[in-house]
Amino acid sequence: MKYPARVKIIDVGPRDGLQNEKQPVPAAVKIELVQRLQDAGLKEIEVTSYVSPKWVPQMADNAEVMAGIARKAGVLYSVLTPNLKGFEAALAGKPDEIVVFGAASEAFSQRNINCSIAESIERFAPVVQAALEAGIAVRGAMSCTVGCPYEGEIAPEKVGYLAGLMKNIGVQRVDVADTIGVGTPVKVQKALEATLAHFDLDQVSGHFHDTYGQALSNTLAALDLGVWNFQSSVAGLGGCPYAKGATGNVATEDVVYLLQGMGIETGIDLDKLIDAGQFISEHLGRPTQSRVAKALLTKRAG
Amino acid sequence: MKYPARVKIIDVGPRDGLQNEKQPVPAAVKIELVQRLQDAGLKEIEVTSYVSPKWVPQMADNAEVMAGIARKAGVLYSVLTPNLKGFEAALAGKPDEIVVFGAASEAFSQRNINCSIAESIERFAPVVQAALEAGIAVRGAMSCTVGCPYEGEIAPEKVGYLAGLMKNIGVQRVDVADTIGVGTPVKVQKALEATLAHFDLDQVSGHFHDTYGQALSNTLAALDLGVWNFQSSVAGLGGCPYAKGATGNVATEDVVYLLQGMGIETGIDLDKLIDAGQFISEHLGRPTQSRVAKALLTKRAG
Repeated sequence: MKYPARVKIIDVGPRDGLQNEKQPVPAAVKIELVQRLQDAGLKEIEVTSYVSPKWVPQMADNAEVMAGIARKAGVLYSVLTPNLKGFEAALAGKPDEIVVFGAASEAFSQRNINCSIAESIERFAPVVQAALEAGIAVRGAMSCTVGCPYEGEIAPEKVGYLAGLMKNIGVQRVDVADTIGVGTPVKVQKALEATLAHFDLDQVSGHFHDTYGQALSNTLAALDLGVWNFQSSVAGLGGCPYAKGATGNVATEDVVYLLQGMGIETGIDLDKLIDAGQFISEHLGRPTQSRVAKALLTKRAG
Repeated sequence: MKYPARVKIIDVGPRDGLQNEKQPVPAAVKIELVQRLQDAGLKEIEVTSYVSPKWVPQMADNAEVMAGIARKAGVLYSVLTPNLKGFEAALAGKPDEIVVFGAASEAFSQRNINCSIAESIERFAPVVQAALEAGIAVRGAMSCTVGCPYEGEIAPEKVGYLAGLMKNIGVQRVDVADTIGVGTPVKVQKALEATLAHFDLDQVSGHFHDTYGQALSNTLAALDLGVWNFQSSVAGLGGCPYAKGATGNVATEDVVYLLQGMGIETGIDLDKLIDAGQFISEHLGRPTQSRVAKALLTKRAG
């Protein structure tokens, strides 16, 4: 195996992680979480979304959060925008990047956003165009690239189809997400390879859920292909509201431990990252989902 | 990556897994656990140990357990024997294989078995000789091959040193164990490679703890070297009593899921394995440590 010398991690905790909390998290806490993540060395943070508060009340404070974060040079702040209305609302917050999304599964697309994959892309086209014209980068989140709660296993061709559609409307880079965490190394590599037919290596990130404990082996499999961008969530916050049993974003701490152990540069201070995870876990009143944090906190406690 | 077509798993749950339970598990439960594991397709089971009941009262029922299991053709039943006295006691149970053990860390060897690495091997030499003369196979468990709770990181040379000593006294195959779960893929590969300088690929097994959530990525790294024997523990039972915070044998269910997902043959029925894990978890009154079991049980519950 030959691995990348460095890896960039996109922490999706503040958005993807916190969007399913029953008790919405106050803006001030989100702002401090973003602060702590950037202090720990994260270079990309998915901050919030501009989805209707009717659907996702947890992110209704998007403007307040974006206005409240103390931007750090060299850090990219992204926000999820589901449509033109959301994009226009997002503009005031001056995001560096917007995120549009689609599923590699027709059934998931229908149930999650109530339209076909092709229709979802058509709807996003004007959003992407507007963002690019405004000088804002565009990332595409591709969900269910390995398995779908309704369709079961997803063929790599479907991932390639979605990646091609995303490329066509001007999306600049994409996430290959195993939304329900059922993936294993060979399948994940096939989904990544199907995506790499449309995007360069630098434009593809791996987003693995740890529902079945497979996220780090999938990360290793992705590294083996040269993929060097990964998404994860501090303390393992969040999951997918529409996919049954699909809790479990992989914890950023666990990914960083893996990478550091392999001598791969991340620019992240693991201790500070664990502190950030403890900050939000204490606020939420539940233990971290990170095994690394659990082990190192036990060690710290002496 | 090119992976082995099949993998053999040694379930160490009945011995390594249950030896640290505060409330000893009745022999009848252990016997049923072994039965369920072999019914699920496990071809190797580490059943018990013949350590002094003064030190490990949990295994005081070794004779009863070995006499009580209904042997299945093609399954190898192994037992841990710390010395000649233990070996002689073990003979009545007719084990297919005995296990001797040593650490790659001098400090761990001193604290765990109160002698140097070289001395531990000297003490095992007559046990190994007696076993081979009795037609019983001999496996060597090598602990702390990546990290030690007292010495920190362990150099691969130390693993090679221990493997060489084991080979010299006639040990036929060895486990490369990351006893405290601190290993990551590159380090684990180095420990395995140091061992492979003394033993053939067929004679080396990986034994990874999941304390830091790294066990499956380490398994993948080992598969990448062609290693095809792995040790794990149903429901993630057990840990290491002498290594602080070192809970966490990787769960057999999680390893099997990884392998099945990669199209690697294991001969194991995952559903039956999960049932075996539930059987023992219910007896112990605590949830399984297997993420795969948790996810699939949630799915089963509908």
